[in-house]
Amino acid sequence: MLDATSSYKPTGSRSSPYETGQSIVPETTRRADRLPGNRYGNRPTMKDVAARAGVGLKTVSRVVNGEPGVTPDTERRVQEAIEALGFRRNDSARVLRKGRTASIGLVLEDLADPFYGPLSRAVEEVARAHGALLINGSSAEDPDREQELALALCARRVDGLVVIPAGDDHRYLEPEIRAGVATVFVDRPAGRIDADVVLSDNYGGARDGVAHLIAHGHRRIGFIGDMPRIHTAAERLRGYRAAMRDAGITVEERWMSLGATNPERVRRAAQEMLSGPDPVTAVFTGNNRVTVTVIRVLAEQTRRVALVGFDDIELADLLQPGVTVVAQDAAALGRTAAERLFRQLDGTLLVPERIELPTRLVTRGSGELPPAD
Amino acid sequence: MLDATSSYKPTGSRSSPYETGQSIVPETTRRADRLPGNRYGNRPTMKDVAARAGVGLKTVSRVVNGEPGVTPDTERRVQEAIEALGFRRNDSARVLRKGRTASIGLVLEDLADPFYGPLSRAVEEVARAHGALLINGSSAEDPDREQELALALCARRVDGLVVIPAGDDHRYLEPEIRAGVATVFVDRPAGRIDADVVLSDNYGGARDGVAHLIAHGHRRIGFIGDMPRIHTAAERLRGYRAAMRDAGITVEERWMSLGATNPERVRRAAQEMLSGPDPVTAVFTGNNRVTVTVIRVLAEQTRRVALVGFDDIELADLLQPGVTVVAQDAAALGRTAAERLFRQLDGTLLVPERIELPTRLVTRGSGELPPAD
Repeated sequence: MLDATSSYKPTGSRSSPYETGQSIVPETTRRADRLPGNRYGNRPTMKDVAARAGVGLKTVSRVVNGEPGVTPDTERRVQEAIEALGFRRNDSARVLRKGRTASIGLVLEDLADPFYGPLSRAVEEVARAHGALLINGSSAEDPDREQELALALCARRVDGLVVIPAGDDHRYLEPEIRAGVATVFVDRPAGRIDADVVLSDNYGGARDGVAHLIAHGHRRIGFIGDMPRIHTAAERLRGYRAAMRDAGITVEERWMSLGATNPERVRRAAQEMLSGPDPVTAVFTGNNRVTVTVIRVLAEQTRRVALVGFDDIELADLLQPGVTVVAQDAAALGRTAAERLFRQLDGTLLVPERIELPTRLVTRGSGELPPAD
Repeated sequence: MLDATSSYKPTGSRSSPYETGQSIVPETTRRADRLPGNRYGNRPTMKDVAARAGVGLKTVSRVVNGEPGVTPDTERRVQEAIEALGFRRNDSARVLRKGRTASIGLVLEDLADPFYGPLSRAVEEVARAHGALLINGSSAEDPDREQELALALCARRVDGLVVIPAGDDHRYLEPEIRAGVATVFVDRPAGRIDADVVLSDNYGGARDGVAHLIAHGHRRIGFIGDMPRIHTAAERLRGYRAAMRDAGITVEERWMSLGATNPERVRRAAQEMLSGPDPVTAVFTGNNRVTVTVIRVLAEQTRRVALVGFDDIELADLLQPGVTVVAQDAAALGRTAAERLFRQLDGTLLVPERIELPTRLVTRGSGELPPAD
């Protein structure tokens, strides 16, 4: 399990440049100049928007809140003024004014994946600490469903969104973001928009896990991962390739299998790698769903096969052998993302950042087995 | 899985009893006399409510949809007319009229408990098959939070609610139910209102699990469960007591421990039962959170202790010994509850029922160990 004292310090924690006046954001992530109207202490108001668009305050309010009673032409003029000024609705104030309960939305990828349990709970705890409700939904790894759900949550007046994206094009969120909906992506990056992103070091974690197997004498190492279009799966494969390359090992195609993580597909992939004249002597599994199936396949083998899995799994330490894993801190991912979201809502954080949290190799036995041959 | 051709038929669509004047509700579930205004073929409309309250249609619409602009006095008169006539908002029609996506809400108890993963996913699949979105939230086992969340989802215009209740008084939902929000409780019953409830046979499952230990020679059997105010915990304790009584065993107080399921509390409880001059020779654990901690405690014992756990847990079959469990079908709970909900929305189901799903004893080794002494 995770060490209670280990802390995953997010980049840019505590001493935010927006509070101290000093920048700790690397040059590469500073894009303030690209955001219009990003003027500290002089934030454009709804009044500024009304003046520029030549309409009344009530009309701006209607547009911002998505209420009816505005002609398309007027709405366009107001949207142009909002964009020109870089106006962002001050959500916290709005919530108080309307007397509604503040709420944030969380778009998950799979309701039944235990990895998202601690992540969701952490987001919920931060929301609660800010007096906001959390409402969740799942895309079931379908980009259309993700969009439908995210927009449905916006239509239901969430003040912000934490998104674990299924798709790779999030321009559909631009009008919402312009209208003041705070947005943070977690676990996987946003596509084609500038947004806050909180990730694990998927590349580095996988590279370290595979290097660990190599250090224990393995050269024929299999990789079984999720569908390659999924960011985390691609990054972990990249980490696998890097570790193999660093060790001077030429990877054979038949050692790599990416695809759906249902038990049938994973079982077949594992059995193929483990058969034939030169079977793999170790397997690196790309996520917890893959790992639990591969553990079952390895338990049926007469030959001893080493295993390192990405993601920790419950009871992994009590199996024989214990399962060595590259653990992500799912709670820290959720907490960091939610805290960013509320900083956006506070108006103290205006420049999108990419935060990467480290992973941790937890050795328990399965990853320290030497090659059987 | 669901029949792909099943469709979320709005009330009043083609084969509805309100148009044909014929009832398709089975006789056994017809308690129409207990529901005011439940007149097939003559369902009260918003117009009827307006006439009775002496207000305009727009005013009734405002009250029903929770929109502002109605004086408290007028709202009271409209509510009285709604109650007197047994008016139920036609949600499906409303959804279509407004061009909104249909949605249902799920109030969970703990986002990180893996038991709720398959349950949530099953609810989501049924919702999707009916063209509706699912939005979730968690009460974190706090009755106030449950109420706040359920009402917030209603305010965000969900068409129905599936609730895993934390509290035991759900009268706060009566106005919503009257206004047409479909409601089904799952895993635990509703309190102080008549509502659809889908439960596992918690009593019978626990009784069978404990009887299984008794059949393998145990008499000093411990029970470690969740807080006694939680329905499932109380029912499982009742099952434990029944099995012991049936076997003529007098239960000692020190064999039973109910409380929070955090590892520290459970560990202490298990260690106490396992120490002293007459330690328990077997433990029955009241849910999956308790089981995973007790597995750890038992792994540290030099003495062999039998274990049966309520709820299945991932990888339980790969431990040494495999963990014998009383498995609930979490997906079936969710699916059954969601299907009831959509039948309510179809208008085909009007009388609250209590549905109990069976549990299944899965023997894997730990529950078949004989007493160590």
